[in-house]
Amino acid sequence: MNEEKYVEEISDQDDNFSKWYNQVVRKAELADYAPVRGCMIIRPYGYAIWENIQRLMDARFKETDVVNAYFPLLIPRSFLEREAEHIEGFAPEVAWVTRGGGEELEEPLAIRPTSETIIGHSYSKWVQSYRDLPILINLWNNVMRWEKRTSLFLRTSEFLWQEGHTAHRTLEEAEERTRMMLEVYRSFAEEDAAIPVLVGRKSENEKFAGALRTYSIEAMMGDGKALQAGTSHNLGNNFAKSFDIQYLDADGQRKYCATTSWGVSTRMIGGVIMVHGDKSGLILPPRIAPYQVVIVPIWRKEAEKSLVLEQVTRVEKMLKGKVRVKVDRSENTPGWKFNEWELRGVPVRMEIGPRDVQNNSVMLVRRDNRAKEAVSLDALETRLSELLEVVQKDLFQRAVEFREKNMHYTDSYDEFKRIIAEDRGFVRVKWAEDSAAELAIKEETKATLRVIPFDQPEGGITGKCIYTGKPATCEAVFARSY
Amino acid sequence: MNEEKYVEEISDQDDNFSKWYNQVVRKAELADYAPVRGCMIIRPYGYAIWENIQRLMDARFKETDVVNAYFPLLIPRSFLEREAEHIEGFAPEVAWVTRGGGEELEEPLAIRPTSETIIGHSYSKWVQSYRDLPILINLWNNVMRWEKRTSLFLRTSEFLWQEGHTAHRTLEEAEERTRMMLEVYRSFAEEDAAIPVLVGRKSENEKFAGALRTYSIEAMMGDGKALQAGTSHNLGNNFAKSFDIQYLDADGQRKYCATTSWGVSTRMIGGVIMVHGDKSGLILPPRIAPYQVVIVPIWRKEAEKSLVLEQVTRVEKMLKGKVRVKVDRSENTPGWKFNEWELRGVPVRMEIGPRDVQNNSVMLVRRDNRAKEAVSLDALETRLSELLEVVQKDLFQRAVEFREKNMHYTDSYDEFKRIIAEDRGFVRVKWAEDSAAELAIKEETKATLRVIPFDQPEGGITGKCIYTGKPATCEAVFARSY
Repeated sequence: MNEEKYVEEISDQDDNFSKWYNQVVRKAELADYAPVRGCMIIRPYGYAIWENIQRLMDARFKETDVVNAYFPLLIPRSFLEREAEHIEGFAPEVAWVTRGGGEELEEPLAIRPTSETIIGHSYSKWVQSYRDLPILINLWNNVMRWEKRTSLFLRTSEFLWQEGHTAHRTLEEAEERTRMMLEVYRSFAEEDAAIPVLVGRKSENEKFAGALRTYSIEAMMGDGKALQAGTSHNLGNNFAKSFDIQYLDADGQRKYCATTSWGVSTRMIGGVIMVHGDKSGLILPPRIAPYQVVIVPIWRKEAEKSLVLEQVTRVEKMLKGKVRVKVDRSENTPGWKFNEWELRGVPVRMEIGPRDVQNNSVMLVRRDNRAKEAVSLDALETRLSELLEVVQKDLFQRAVEFREKNMHYTDSYDEFKRIIAEDRGFVRVKWAEDSAAELAIKEETKATLRVIPFDQPEGGITGKCIYTGKPATCEAVFARSY
Repeated sequence: MNEEKYVEEISDQDDNFSKWYNQVVRKAELADYAPVRGCMIIRPYGYAIWENIQRLMDARFKETDVVNAYFPLLIPRSFLEREAEHIEGFAPEVAWVTRGGGEELEEPLAIRPTSETIIGHSYSKWVQSYRDLPILINLWNNVMRWEKRTSLFLRTSEFLWQEGHTAHRTLEEAEERTRMMLEVYRSFAEEDAAIPVLVGRKSENEKFAGALRTYSIEAMMGDGKALQAGTSHNLGNNFAKSFDIQYLDADGQRKYCATTSWGVSTRMIGGVIMVHGDKSGLILPPRIAPYQVVIVPIWRKEAEKSLVLEQVTRVEKMLKGKVRVKVDRSENTPGWKFNEWELRGVPVRMEIGPRDVQNNSVMLVRRDNRAKEAVSLDALETRLSELLEVVQKDLFQRAVEFREKNMHYTDSYDEFKRIIAEDRGFVRVKWAEDSAAELAIKEETKATLRVIPFDQPEGGITGKCIYTGKPATCEAVFARSY
């Protein structure tokens, strides 16, 4: 087999980033299009990444007292219609069930695009007194939003996600929970997925249909575009009023709850690919990699084979349960295996050949920078965990540096337009929070307001809005996005 | 609050088992009906049981080299129609999506009742050579089967489950995998859920639509009825032929794969409730219980309160990460809490009062038999894990004894009818494997052939079929079922 197969076949990132992306997703066997338009099959290797994301995020949720539950897939049309902004936002994307059990249904049922409404209905029954609050529930499920233009992981008609839904006594508590979950997302993205994110508030135009305020984490992809990687919504009393979620407070008064919702989806996998990947394929951060180490046995003569394979099995056993290790015992050549596992982004490759057996050592090769080191078996376990930590940190650091390099600051709208037109990354500008101006910029440049970062200049804003010339009220970040 | 609340309100099991069942499910807050007909909301306490089931089963799957993946929710009608028996079996239960994104769809899409067809389509593309085999994939997902009569966990239009789908080189390999997964189900049911099961083959009438052979595990519920708790299907070449899953064998010939599928659903939770529960509510086997131990602090005078609560916190910290522990710090009375956590089936209650603090000990009370023992703090960790193991084993043993007591052997069809009519449990009979006779028995008694156990008399069968009088070919177990 041709050892250069993958390297040759993958497009250049700089040349055509989206072609590169699609090739990596398909060749690394992460996902595939389904025979149903816009839906995807998540293949075992891609799903294993999702399982790691789930495990790590779920642990973070549970630390904040969130519990999991399940709500039905189908939502009566009348429920969706009860919150006016909500139905307006989602109606065009809904898939409808109109027949079941051989009969036409009296009322069409929506496949959930999100579950605020059906959950609101339950919370209104579950909540009686302030003692029943807060309710802190999360769902891991599938949702459907009929999409015209789709891209694997980034935008598909069906996707997997988690949606959290909480109910509180006061608006303050809801706001606190909304921000707390945003911080959970930030820490997951940065610490586990090694993706640096901008954290802040969405504009009125970009907020969730029915929300009081939407916060998000925004990441810069390898082509300079933005990916909204997670959102957290303070729904205020909006859904509580539409679904009559009231409680009897300690003062004897009946009051509306304040609710929140927040979600992260399989789209995060797309972010991981686009932030860390290079021309040889995927690079996976160790914490979410299905395999953290792949062992490639190497021999030339048949006489060396059993010697090497015995050592490989010894090392495999030694590491089992400590790191996620894969041994490639297939009949392919070592060179083919190197390419294969580089394409699949395994953070560390371990080579074991006859000389390594003799020296009682192994050769470790980092996927991210291809640095090599020989490590003796005695030191292997310790060194390997260290190395995985180092790779995790370096990937994050490299992504931070890339983002800083492609983060532009300007007061000139002409320069703003040039940066966006040339796909040079994010633009941070002074801003007067004007929805019309925001839509005009989108029309003129295809850039959208990604986020108004929490991190604002100390001592407040001076100067004028880049578009309207009105006194600026904040700094905002614009970019083209996925 | 009324300390006797739950005990008084739950129906007697012997009086009306299904009423008892529904009350326990609702009062223990395991699940609730959804506003969509026949669908259920799995509440956090019920979902936590499912998470434990998932974790334990998933580990057992992975030990047999199975990996997880995700396939789409929606299946084109033409796919379902490709396997004739399959569509005949499932068509009446399908929910159809006919509109999406504001338009009528050209071809209606089924919400998956099971995924053999869409998986067959993918496998036909993924499999080229014998080197690509076996494929061993499992899905954790939701499926929909429009049901007329529903019961929480036992039969709902939407349910959660896992469905495994494998493809093999030979029929022998497929048969081996089918039996292997059945054994995984048996060991999970008996060791983790403490539910003894009969293991064997389904009759032709009862097998999966499109299968060559179906195997199942069958459990006896507290009212003597049967619950099919898991099935494993050898699909032979049927789906491979319908979906053209072929491979190039080592001998240069193109051959059809043999495939299997196997599933266990949230119905298992219904089984756990009906096998172990008693008149005070749920009894959960420690391995799948959301909380294995609940700590109830007890004090009379306000002066004792902080003393007790400090000790409770100490014990909680000591046990954290070792057993799943819940502290009930609510304002309810101890008696109310005892009833509440008995209803919810926590295997062991730990009482800590002022005298226990003084003695540096705690009081442990088993949920299953209410046996009490004082244990010093020094010995607590060890004793608790022992006790949880003992409870796990005793629950299984009790269920075995119950099943033996209600397992009847007869050669008389009149006695058969009496046993079934009086709801006295399972009947094991000599049988000639005659489909018409099986249907006649169902018609006359409402009992169905649950399983032809693997465990058959040594030395073969002699005697006549209980219904036809023809020479018996096996022993079969009949019962009314859920």
